[in-house]
Amino acid sequence: MLVVMKHNASKEEIDAVVDTIKEMGYGARAIPGGQRTAVGLIGNDGAVDSGRLLGLNGVLEVIPVTHPYKQVSREWRAENTVVTLANGTRVGSSDVVVMAGPCAVESEAQILDIAHQLREMGATVLRGGAFKPRTSPYAFQGLGVRGLELLAKAREETGLAIVTEALDPEGADLVAQHADIIQIGARNMQNYALLRRAGRTGKPVLLKRGLSATIDELLLAAEYILAEDNDDVILCERGIRSFDTHTRNLLDLAAIPVVKSLSHLPIVADPSHGTGLRAKVIPMARAAIAAGADGLIVEVHPDPPLAMSDGAQSLYPAQFQELMEQIRVIARAIGRDITRPLSGVAVG
Amino acid sequence: MLVVMKHNASKEEIDAVVDTIKEMGYGARAIPGGQRTAVGLIGNDGAVDSGRLLGLNGVLEVIPVTHPYKQVSREWRAENTVVTLANGTRVGSSDVVVMAGPCAVESEAQILDIAHQLREMGATVLRGGAFKPRTSPYAFQGLGVRGLELLAKAREETGLAIVTEALDPEGADLVAQHADIIQIGARNMQNYALLRRAGRTGKPVLLKRGLSATIDELLLAAEYILAEDNDDVILCERGIRSFDTHTRNLLDLAAIPVVKSLSHLPIVADPSHGTGLRAKVIPMARAAIAAGADGLIVEVHPDPPLAMSDGAQSLYPAQFQELMEQIRVIARAIGRDITRPLSGVAVG
Amino acid sequence: MLVVMKHNASKEEIDAVVDTIKEMGYGARAIPGGQRTAVGLIGNDGAVDSGRLLGLNGVLEVIPVTHPYKQVSREWRAENTVVTLANGTRVGSSDVVVMAGPCAVESEAQILDIAHQLREMGATVLRGGAFKPRTSPYAFQGLGVRGLELLAKAREETGLAIVTEALDPEGADLVAQHADIIQIGARNMQNYALLRRAGRTGKPVLLKRGLSATIDELLLAAEYILAEDNDDVILCERGIRSFDTHTRNLLDLAAIPVVKSLSHLPIVADPSHGTGLRAKVIPMARAAIAAGADGLIVEVHPDPPLAMSDGAQSLYPAQFQELMEQIRVIARAIGRDITRPLSGVAVG
Amino acid sequence: MLVVMKHNASKEEIDAVVDTIKEMGYGARAIPGGQRTAVGLIGNDGAVDSGRLLGLNGVLEVIPVTHPYKQVSREWRAENTVVTLANGTRVGSSDVVVMAGPCAVESEAQILDIAHQLREMGATVLRGGAFKPRTSPYAFQGLGVRGLELLAKAREETGLAIVTEALDPEGADLVAQHADIIQIGARNMQNYALLRRAGRTGKPVLLKRGLSATIDELLLAAEYILAEDNDDVILCERGIRSFDTHTRNLLDLAAIPVVKSLSHLPIVADPSHGTGLRAKVIPMARAAIAAGADGLIVEVHPDPPLAMSDGAQSLYPAQFQELMEQIRVIARAIGRDITRPLSGVAVG
Repeated sequence: MLVVMKHNASKEEIDAVVDTIKEMGYGARAIPGGQRTAVGLIGNDGAVDSGRLLGLNGVLEVIPVTHPYKQVSREWRAENTVVTLANGTRVGSSDVVVMAGPCAVESEAQILDIAHQLREMGATVLRGGAFKPRTSPYAFQGLGVRGLELLAKAREETGLAIVTEALDPEGADLVAQHADIIQIGARNMQNYALLRRAGRTGKPVLLKRGLSATIDELLLAAEYILAEDNDDVILCERGIRSFDTHTRNLLDLAAIPVVKSLSHLPIVADPSHGTGLRAKVIPMARAAIAAGADGLIVEVHPDPPLAMSDGAQSLYPAQFQELMEQIRVIARAIGRDITRPLSGVAVG
Repeated sequence: MLVVMKHNASKEEIDAVVDTIKEMGYGARAIPGGQRTAVGLIGNDGAVDSGRLLGLNGVLEVIPVTHPYKQVSREWRAENTVVTLANGTRVGSSDVVVMAGPCAVESEAQILDIAHQLREMGATVLRGGAFKPRTSPYAFQGLGVRGLELLAKAREETGLAIVTEALDPEGADLVAQHADIIQIGARNMQNYALLRRAGRTGKPVLLKRGLSATIDELLLAAEYILAEDNDDVILCERGIRSFDTHTRNLLDLAAIPVVKSLSHLPIVADPSHGTGLRAKVIPMARAAIAAGADGLIVEVHPDPPLAMSDGAQSLYPAQFQELMEQIRVIARAIGRDITRPLSGVAVG
Repeated sequence: MLVVMKHNASKEEIDAVVDTIKEMGYGARAIPGGQRTAVGLIGNDGAVDSGRLLGLNGVLEVIPVTHPYKQVSREWRAENTVVTLANGTRVGSSDVVVMAGPCAVESEAQILDIAHQLREMGATVLRGGAFKPRTSPYAFQGLGVRGLELLAKAREETGLAIVTEALDPEGADLVAQHADIIQIGARNMQNYALLRRAGRTGKPVLLKRGLSATIDELLLAAEYILAEDNDDVILCERGIRSFDTHTRNLLDLAAIPVVKSLSHLPIVADPSHGTGLRAKVIPMARAAIAAGADGLIVEVHPDPPLAMSDGAQSLYPAQFQELMEQIRVIARAIGRDITRPLSGVAVG
Repeated sequence: MLVVMKHNASKEEIDAVVDTIKEMGYGARAIPGGQRTAVGLIGNDGAVDSGRLLGLNGVLEVIPVTHPYKQVSREWRAENTVVTLANGTRVGSSDVVVMAGPCAVESEAQILDIAHQLREMGATVLRGGAFKPRTSPYAFQGLGVRGLELLAKAREETGLAIVTEALDPEGADLVAQHADIIQIGARNMQNYALLRRAGRTGKPVLLKRGLSATIDELLLAAEYILAEDNDDVILCERGIRSFDTHTRNLLDLAAIPVVKSLSHLPIVADPSHGTGLRAKVIPMARAAIAAGADGLIVEVHPDPPLAMSDGAQSLYPAQFQELMEQIRVIARAIGRDITRPLSGVAVG
């Protein structure tokens, strides 16, 4: 439930609404907006008697939030959320952000080599798995903490921000120490202990849509993070399960405009996992930008055939360069641009 | 099975291959290509002993066609098929074709009005249903033959080519008399009697992917048409069934590059049925072009709230105009263009 | 919309309701039930002003039919529809009906052999395809009219009723001449021309659920047949499309109790197409009966490895016999039984 | 990879195989079977040179395990795994086990009341959530540790074994202290940290299939638990995501015979979550037994309309009693029975 204040409501009036909600036994959170402030009522699992709130000074109206999610919704906050990373990259602005890198951190040489190449080509965020969730317990599970340290070193040398996945609550704390964005993978989209812990770190969180998650379920999972007072959530469409076997998953690009209409959170697309096939990554990456995505997260490996995981869906560096050129034109066709490349700070 | 001839094979050598295949009890069809001719062996439902064919003069190799489809495959014909319509529009060339119009023909005034508008904005093909397949037997089923006549009149006035749906074999003959392209809808993708009859008319056929059809099944359905010696098939991705209810269907844009790699046939996208929501049509139309579609088929109605069917997914003319401008830029970003508008022949 | 008459309404009162509905421009159909008669209003595509009807003598209430289907719904008719075949088999009664036979009629010897075996084991309906819908145009398409004649001969010899598929409107007329039940396959569930023509023959129709059809869509397809004044429709759950590849389709047994609550029509299950694997047919056939199915339609072949189609999912006769014994016990566990075997009329 | 020993291989020969595998750098685990012992090679992510092993005394053959799972597969162990609970209930034997109880533990009175009723009616395992995974962060999340204590009290009074869900690794340890079976829910099927921790507790684990998990993925998730040297895994089919909205999920009963052929682990069905509708629970529970399930896990609440969660899918106690009677007959139809009720030990 959302208590919308009048345009000229005073701070005292807003505070009174907050206090009243708390007296009623719920949580309250003031949401300053461009035009007016709203106060969100948190913690009700059903109908709330709004009569008492409607009677307070400065209250314009009380909107029952019919969707099960609240803080993530555009009803709750009309302006786009922009997540600003430590290196200045802003996700959710009019500039499209490109995150790229290998599926997994494999060695110091590998991650530094690709990081430098990607920076030159205009990526501003480096992806790379240190902890890998693998369907089989016998598959390569990543370098762990050593992988995090190598990512941190790559950031030091290139200025790229780091996004990497956490698999469990302890992992979230570890990733938060080394990275700029904590990634929560598709398999863990409803791992609530992990969502809460990632939320509490205060770091930006990249939340991937589960393989069979509805858009409402994705937004409700994000709500778990915002409920920890962490608004810096970046959603990610990465393909859902369907019946055709030509592609690994089915990249649901319509989810992008749908999410944009329902929520103020930024959304990026992952055409690598979304298709599973190198040759389909570029057309689908272009399509994601044309559909309005706020960014891409793409797998690029210095030598895909040698990749320890997901080689079949990793781009060659030269393909990534071509992609950057195409999406720049497409972004401009719809009044956007690609984030400016990082300037001279890099050492390497 | 495909018998690939040497570059310099003579006509006599090719004829000998055709004759031998027929003696073996199968059909044969020569496929002239840019580089060399191939001879397709038709009618085998499993393994064929290729030894006898490999021994003939002029034969380079025999390729077992592992996919269950044959004539539609790139193995069978490497060059893109270009379907040329009566008004000169070429589907499958480097130019992107835009087909637009109302869900259903409702009246003479409606169809002529929108046809003129669309022609001015650059569409070259007019869509509009005369026979409507409706989930409920009690819903509006279209104007029937009168609808076909009105479409023909719109063509006469504007020069736009006409695409409209046939629902049964008799309907295919009727549509062939009045229209330029016979549309076969998603519900009828595996209506084999209809596919065969449409193929036999010799007219171009727009074949929509069924709601739960795999890409292989779509190509096999097209094979039914090509098996009638009609190569002028345009495939259409129009959304498949999935579990999220925010959109009517799930537009599977990855099907576009997948089809392009498997088949020589052109493929267009229908973002109107693919999303079911006006506000999502434009971003998904842009995305389809970015993904490499050869064209769009889009619902546009002069007054969507008054539409007798599918009003919620029909664009306003002004939205269509904006879309045309955006996709022109996107097409150029990938080295294509939009088909040139029809020149002064129009009367209206 | 349904006009429910009072318990003691006279024939004149009912006729007056029918006449009034026709004056209003809609169709009307009286539905006699055990307790009371209702009059269905047909042909409205939206709201109808019920005031005039409520004012007539003998009218108890007017129920807006909220589901898009009408005549198929339990609101429209509370009692189960029982479809009685020419050989006395009743589908939809408390007795479970077993339909069995090969995928396709292959030869006189094959169909007569299996028909006699199945009759001895207790089946009362013989299935067998004369016209086969095949995904590939190059696959075996059935014996056609010769197949129909062989089925008729098998009926003559054994007394088994015949169910066989029609693929197009002309085929529906042909099948109606030779068979007891016209089967409409999953691919044709929304082939409206075929549904209408099959309905008009007046013969019982077995309507299979489409591969991605919702239950509402299945019922609406049945509505097309009932709208032709043919109530003898038997629904069939035969598996829907899903993502796991261990089975050919996903047999949705919950559809059985769902359909039973929404509709008065009988529903049978096809565990052969529903699983595609011989070893899974028996457990799923048992499960279907336990879930409340009114019958089974099962593929049995005298020699499955030699079958011209669907051999992998055809039972051996001995397996079918074992199945019959198991489902007899299960049917009794829920207060039903298996239809009595045909008595001494057989000649063969 | 599986090293199959000869029938009369000595303990020394088996030990030599184990030692050799360890020298090769992999894990080894001897699997005694009824006929012969096999030694599993663990930890290879691809091909292993089997030459050295084939040369050892007592080795019959080396089977490459082609499925990505190993220890869970029937190739690895032919005999059914039977999981024996502390109260003597055996899951996976010829007796069908019934687990029942409310969605959530709500109060001492509620859980003791229903536990006593269920025990009288023949259940041998009590279900009840203490930690509830909820799609919305604002929904009732369970009583937590207090809920575990109440379940333990119910066990003390009734002798029923306890199954309850753990949501995170710490929770697995907590649940292991109080319950007999640790449940891992559908949302957490690929929460590998949780799977590993649950495995390490040594307690039996009930692993639910994820909403869009293939059967191979379910088995691979179970493999994570067996890889921790814990063989006591009970699989659970609880419905997958599909497109029809009449039921909450689509209960995939064919998964039961498929799992039985691929794996030696027991599998039970959850018709409550599988349908989400009280009226469909009973037919689908019967169907699951008919399909060969080793048991059921069913929601029963003393007063469903007052349930704090999932009331719509909870049976009334009287319905549960009727279900017990029906499934007893069905189990016997296929040569099984229902586990004998607990005898006089109960205090309450």
